[in-house]
Amino acid sequence: MDLKLLVKNILKGETKAIARGMSLIENDSEHAPPLLAALHTNTGQAYRLGITGPPGSGKSTLTARLIKLFRETDQKVGVVAVDPTSPFTGGAVLGDRIRMMEFSADSGVFIRSMASRGSLGGLSRKAQDVADVLDSSGKDIIIFETVGVGQTELDIADTADTVVVVLVPESGDAIQTMKAGLMEIADIFVVNKSDREGTDKLKMELEMMLNLRPKDETRWKPPILTTTAHQGIGVEALKEKMDAHREYMEKNGLLELKRKARINSKVRSILQSRLLEDFWTETNKKLFDEKMDLVLNNKLSPYDLVNSLLEKKA
Amino acid sequence: MDLKLLVKNILKGETKAIARGMSLIENDSEHAPPLLAALHTNTGQAYRLGITGPPGSGKSTLTARLIKLFRETDQKVGVVAVDPTSPFTGGAVLGDRIRMMEFSADSGVFIRSMASRGSLGGLSRKAQDVADVLDSSGKDIIIFETVGVGQTELDIADTADTVVVVLVPESGDAIQTMKAGLMEIADIFVVNKSDREGTDKLKMELEMMLNLRPKDETRWKPPILTTTAHQGIGVEALKEKMDAHREYMEKNGLLELKRKARINSKVRSILQSRLLEDFWTETNKKLFDEKMDLVLNNKLSPYDLVNSLLEKKA
Repeated sequence: MDLKLLVKNILKGETKAIARGMSLIENDSEHAPPLLAALHTNTGQAYRLGITGPPGSGKSTLTARLIKLFRETDQKVGVVAVDPTSPFTGGAVLGDRIRMMEFSADSGVFIRSMASRGSLGGLSRKAQDVADVLDSSGKDIIIFETVGVGQTELDIADTADTVVVVLVPESGDAIQTMKAGLMEIADIFVVNKSDREGTDKLKMELEMMLNLRPKDETRWKPPILTTTAHQGIGVEALKEKMDAHREYMEKNGLLELKRKARINSKVRSILQSRLLEDFWTETNKKLFDEKMDLVLNNKLSPYDLVNSLLEKKA
Repeated sequence: MDLKLLVKNILKGETKAIARGMSLIENDSEHAPPLLAALHTNTGQAYRLGITGPPGSGKSTLTARLIKLFRETDQKVGVVAVDPTSPFTGGAVLGDRIRMMEFSADSGVFIRSMASRGSLGGLSRKAQDVADVLDSSGKDIIIFETVGVGQTELDIADTADTVVVVLVPESGDAIQTMKAGLMEIADIFVVNKSDREGTDKLKMELEMMLNLRPKDETRWKPPILTTTAHQGIGVEALKEKMDAHREYMEKNGLLELKRKARINSKVRSILQSRLLEDFWTETNKKLFDEKMDLVLNNKLSPYDLVNSLLEKKA
């Protein structure tokens, strides 16, 4: 594999090269770390948006509408869609193809879906690595689109600079929204499918929730917007609020802080994988299997097993 | 701290000792590993149930009803409720107190809520460690109650022997259910709040989905039940199906397999923490901070930083 050429072509924004780089990451290729190392100096340029909400809230439609708006001002867009669909159902791949079609002729848009369940683990890091490929390829905007209820593997609040939480009138009581932890991560609330009954009630409940927060004039107060994404209604207003939040983040030095935290956790995640890799020598694997039998028969505790493995190593 | 006494009292099933042991785990106390090591030989007795579903589907009410049924046959019950509510809102603690009241006079029931968001990480392992305390304390049934849409931090399918997925008529199209990955983890489906409109439609959709699976007579086919938990309707039928699934698991040696997989991943998780702990010496912390500046300024990649740290160590 010609890594130098691949790096060069990714930096040029070539679609094929970008896709190839992402596949290396997704497949845990040995070429992925050197690739990402080479691309690193060119990252940090793209603005990272998060779009999250329960299944069926219309995130994909909203994302497609936003892409069109960004393209009107010639901004290049990359999408990382984290889909909890299992690989067995093939949902992610299928969804990808359908969504790609609309923008297939536009080299300024790149969409990648990643399946959550059944992944070999480390999805969160992979999604961020994939985003780094997009970042270094010259995309101006990266959109993370992810199903968010409760804590998902990809922590969108840490990953994105601006988080849009999408709800629908049927999302149920705002109390439940708060319970699901969406309340604290939202920079902007969107009530989508707002032509349906219950929109005003949900808006009011969200408003009440937000008013429960301690008063702080300097802090960003998440606006609550309504959209009907499949008709494009309200999407421009949403983009304006996104821009306003970006400005707020930049002015207050928060973008830089987010980037630092992101890189910090990335380094720690790489370190963790490497420590484990280095640990699993053939000797340790063999020892592990032997002692594991004792643990399963309740003769040795998991903690004692680990202790004995680590002593052996020293 | 008198660890021996604590172990003795937990094994006797004393409520105060159980709570104390759990707090050690939740607070990452240095006493937690030796405690769990000492309790290990007494684990593996309890049957582990998972109750999962979207927020607002009535999981807590259903759990309370099931506890009552188990108590009728004098089975001791422990509940680990994994709640994605943030610690800031205090939801978990409050919910705990409210739920505890009903069973507060019954020493055969122990309920513990754990908050997901804002935890210091490792929630999944902590939830399982807390369950091990309950297991060793002589509980016959352990119920994991968790908000499940998409991949949550606690992987209920790996944690529980029988997984009950609770939906409500408003849960939306079954397609969305499948997308959320609930389809593959359910051993039993429950349509709760079945007095509401849409119950039959949801049941039919679930049935259709299940029929899409490859035919396999030997494999468990998840039944679809209806309940109205707040009135107690359908809960006995649910318990019967739970018993049937348990019997199926036992007969086919699947319980033992699940336990093995659980212990295996536990050992690996402990190993990972220990490797990291051992790595973060004062020297490495200092080196990390120094080189991190280079990474933030795009002069060094995260991968190169890790490489240099690991070489330094050797």
